[in-house]
Amino acid sequence: MEEKLNELKEIMGTLTDLNHAAALLGWDQETYMPPGGVESRGRSLATLGQMAQEISTDEKVGKLIEALEPWATEQDPDSDDARLIVVSRRGYDKAVKVPPKMVGERAMLTTQANAAWREARQKSDYSIFEPWMEKIVEFNQRYADLFKPYDHAYDVLLDDYEPKMKTEDVKKIFAEIRPRQVKLIEAIAAAKQVDDKVLFKNYPESDQVAMGEEIARLIGFDFNRGRQDKVHHPFASNIGYGDQRITYRVDENFFNTYIFSIMHESGHAMYEQGIPQSLSRTTLYGGTSLAIHESQSRLWENLVGRSLPFWEFYYPKLQARFPEQTKGVSLMEFYKAINKVEPSLIRVEADEATYNLHIMLRLEIEIGLLEGTIKVSELPQIWNDTFEEYLGIRPKNDAEGVLQDVHWSFGLFGYFSTYALGNLVSLQLWDQIRQDIPNLDDQSRQGKFDELLTWLNKNVHQHGSKFYPQDLVQRITGSKINGDPYIKYLNDKYSQIYGL
Amino acid sequence: MEEKLNELKEIMGTLTDLNHAAALLGWDQETYMPPGGVESRGRSLATLGQMAQEISTDEKVGKLIEALEPWATEQDPDSDDARLIVVSRRGYDKAVKVPPKMVGERAMLTTQANAAWREARQKSDYSIFEPWMEKIVEFNQRYADLFKPYDHAYDVLLDDYEPKMKTEDVKKIFAEIRPRQVKLIEAIAAAKQVDDKVLFKNYPESDQVAMGEEIARLIGFDFNRGRQDKVHHPFASNIGYGDQRITYRVDENFFNTYIFSIMHESGHAMYEQGIPQSLSRTTLYGGTSLAIHESQSRLWENLVGRSLPFWEFYYPKLQARFPEQTKGVSLMEFYKAINKVEPSLIRVEADEATYNLHIMLRLEIEIGLLEGTIKVSELPQIWNDTFEEYLGIRPKNDAEGVLQDVHWSFGLFGYFSTYALGNLVSLQLWDQIRQDIPNLDDQSRQGKFDELLTWLNKNVHQHGSKFYPQDLVQRITGSKINGDPYIKYLNDKYSQIYGL
Repeated sequence: MEEKLNELKEIMGTLTDLNHAAALLGWDQETYMPPGGVESRGRSLATLGQMAQEISTDEKVGKLIEALEPWATEQDPDSDDARLIVVSRRGYDKAVKVPPKMVGERAMLTTQANAAWREARQKSDYSIFEPWMEKIVEFNQRYADLFKPYDHAYDVLLDDYEPKMKTEDVKKIFAEIRPRQVKLIEAIAAAKQVDDKVLFKNYPESDQVAMGEEIARLIGFDFNRGRQDKVHHPFASNIGYGDQRITYRVDENFFNTYIFSIMHESGHAMYEQGIPQSLSRTTLYGGTSLAIHESQSRLWENLVGRSLPFWEFYYPKLQARFPEQTKGVSLMEFYKAINKVEPSLIRVEADEATYNLHIMLRLEIEIGLLEGTIKVSELPQIWNDTFEEYLGIRPKNDAEGVLQDVHWSFGLFGYFSTYALGNLVSLQLWDQIRQDIPNLDDQSRQGKFDELLTWLNKNVHQHGSKFYPQDLVQRITGSKINGDPYIKYLNDKYSQIYGL
Repeated sequence: MEEKLNELKEIMGTLTDLNHAAALLGWDQETYMPPGGVESRGRSLATLGQMAQEISTDEKVGKLIEALEPWATEQDPDSDDARLIVVSRRGYDKAVKVPPKMVGERAMLTTQANAAWREARQKSDYSIFEPWMEKIVEFNQRYADLFKPYDHAYDVLLDDYEPKMKTEDVKKIFAEIRPRQVKLIEAIAAAKQVDDKVLFKNYPESDQVAMGEEIARLIGFDFNRGRQDKVHHPFASNIGYGDQRITYRVDENFFNTYIFSIMHESGHAMYEQGIPQSLSRTTLYGGTSLAIHESQSRLWENLVGRSLPFWEFYYPKLQARFPEQTKGVSLMEFYKAINKVEPSLIRVEADEATYNLHIMLRLEIEIGLLEGTIKVSELPQIWNDTFEEYLGIRPKNDAEGVLQDVHWSFGLFGYFSTYALGNLVSLQLWDQIRQDIPNLDDQSRQGKFDELLTWLNKNVHQHGSKFYPQDLVQRITGSKINGDPYIKYLNDKYSQIYGL
């Protein structure tokens, strides 16, 4: 059995090597690739994807898993090896449903669609992206159909990012929290508004980037095993064990853009930096789902980065770096400014109270596109109408509307919901952390985050993708994903800030 | 036959896709990869190399080539398709001799050796690199032995970079030019020396990089299909059709370092930018040999970049950019300064008169290592002794001695000779260009290089690797590689500069 297990691990190792190569190609595409490289990059990614698909669907893999399954059931069910077999089985059964050609097709399609999206966004012209969006929706419908029968086509897509999660579950969770968030937003709208002028001073890019590096280091991002680079749409990428990269966007005239994206992406990268080398080059390497991933990024971005204790520590340093910009602004005024609630157009810059509404909008649209009740040609119209209905404001153009997010251009459908789920999970974890580390706020006030990171390493990161997301949340917090802690957190936080 | 040809092309396309992915991984390793990524990068490169090897040695490829060979002989022997079969046959016959495992081994070995070399060079401590150098020499011996019988083990290695070239040929060419170069250097040493103080003023990095971009654009490097980045050891890399990258090193206190490396690497990249898309994703994509490649880089670096007509155009611009640094220095004084002949320690910064001696030294050492007459442990000693014998000066430490070049750390043996051969070819081409473009100097004086680039596109670049290097030189100039034009050029140029 040892021999068979090693054989399987060897194949999985090869697969990870290819996926990491593809990750670098993707990272480079967003950071440094010259415009002329689009087509050949698409080809390389298509070939890598196709080869990865061929390897992961090789009959040999199926036979190895089959041979190892009886043995695995005799092991400690939580052991790495037992989970490796379970998780590999799931991956294999999914992978064999997808023809390698289609994996190559996706890579070619999305590389070109992404280039079109970039141009469309820059020119704020949806028509440039529309033909590609058509192809992408059609591709996703075709992809979902490979997994028939299903309760809902969207289940198939969701499951790729959030193993075992169902569309119905997500809808139910969203239905429970939406009215409570809307009620809070209305209460805030009726309260005395916060002054956030301090955020709109001029913060030079190089100073912001130096500050971001300082903060990322402070919270525990390891620059020896990572780096930060500038992009249009920030992301974190795992290029291989010891190489986790974060990316950022800077707005010199709006403070929040850079700092919260860098803390957010650091959260993602620190998740991957916390996965032990013993899992690298196996099926268990990498975060277990996007919601769990997002719970990490949002925890650092919001629960640390938008908290009062953090700024009690860092605000004096900020003032030293930007004396002119922060002149006459007290800590409390600054804290309220970065937490100002206001329906806004751009998801990644939304405050915590309105953020989830951006997600619910996208979920409805994705399901509509997939079901065919929304036409790709009508998308900007429907986006703007639904946006206005949900958030009370209307985008003035496509760049700040339907074109704002990169995901669809990469063919990612069923992905957005995980952002809202991540918010919810972050609070479920946070409540547990507060129990386990009673003086957490004091530590924050001293700029000490190692105990927090160690907790996350131990409870979340070290497992890689051994446990499915709902099971992992249950193990740590005693219950599955639910929105109560998040709503309670929002109500407490904003009651204090807005004196509700 | 059409079908079989397409099948072969499809396989070759996949192979190019993989090689381009590997090229990006290599580029990133030198530019942006964090230190922690070394091991997993080695794994990814090993896997990509192994897969490329598996594809290129697949029996199917052999059978396709065999089936196509009779058909190919009936085509125009210079046609793309006919040459594709001939060149593919050569590649296949070589590839099948190398076990895929060994390709993976090379990738793993050289990624780690390169990291060790970087550290060793930084600390100027050969002992850090020595154990890796042992492995690399051993690997190359083992590699050469796969191709037994051979006239000389070194032939095997040389042939990888310079198809069909023999060690004996290179030795003969070097033997013919060496005494003539030495005689010239002696004459120069006895002449009145050139004042090059202007080169050692402070030239801020950002100004140099802006100047370099201007000059690279001026000579024809297309930034829409490429970019420049900073590295320890400059190189050019073909990441795929439409994506050719150059890299540079900057010394703020020595003018030559940056500008000539950027012109040099632009020459390499413009070669690849000039290969038509119809050849991309085939065996014929890429430069045909390293000597031909080097003929392009050296042509732009030296025959343009160190020429008087070029600086007649650009020196006023240089003076405008660096008024303080160039104050009181006439064009002719500047021209003489950048062409100062002086035995120096660093190959890439050597003047044209002494450069080839750096190569001859390395050829002797490589042959000695391969034959076992030089021990890896003795390398610094032998390097320094031979260097002193050849160039009359002695390195003070390993960083400016045996550790200066990156090549061995990448496992590249048999590579260096091509640098000297490239110098020779650049002059053979140049003589032909002067005949075909009689007013070349006038065009240079006006900063116009499009006709020159078009000539190179037409005569050299567009062929990709269709023709073997000696054949290509013969086609263009009427004779095989020989050193006479180069020696004549050196004598003419330096007689004028030094009044010999």
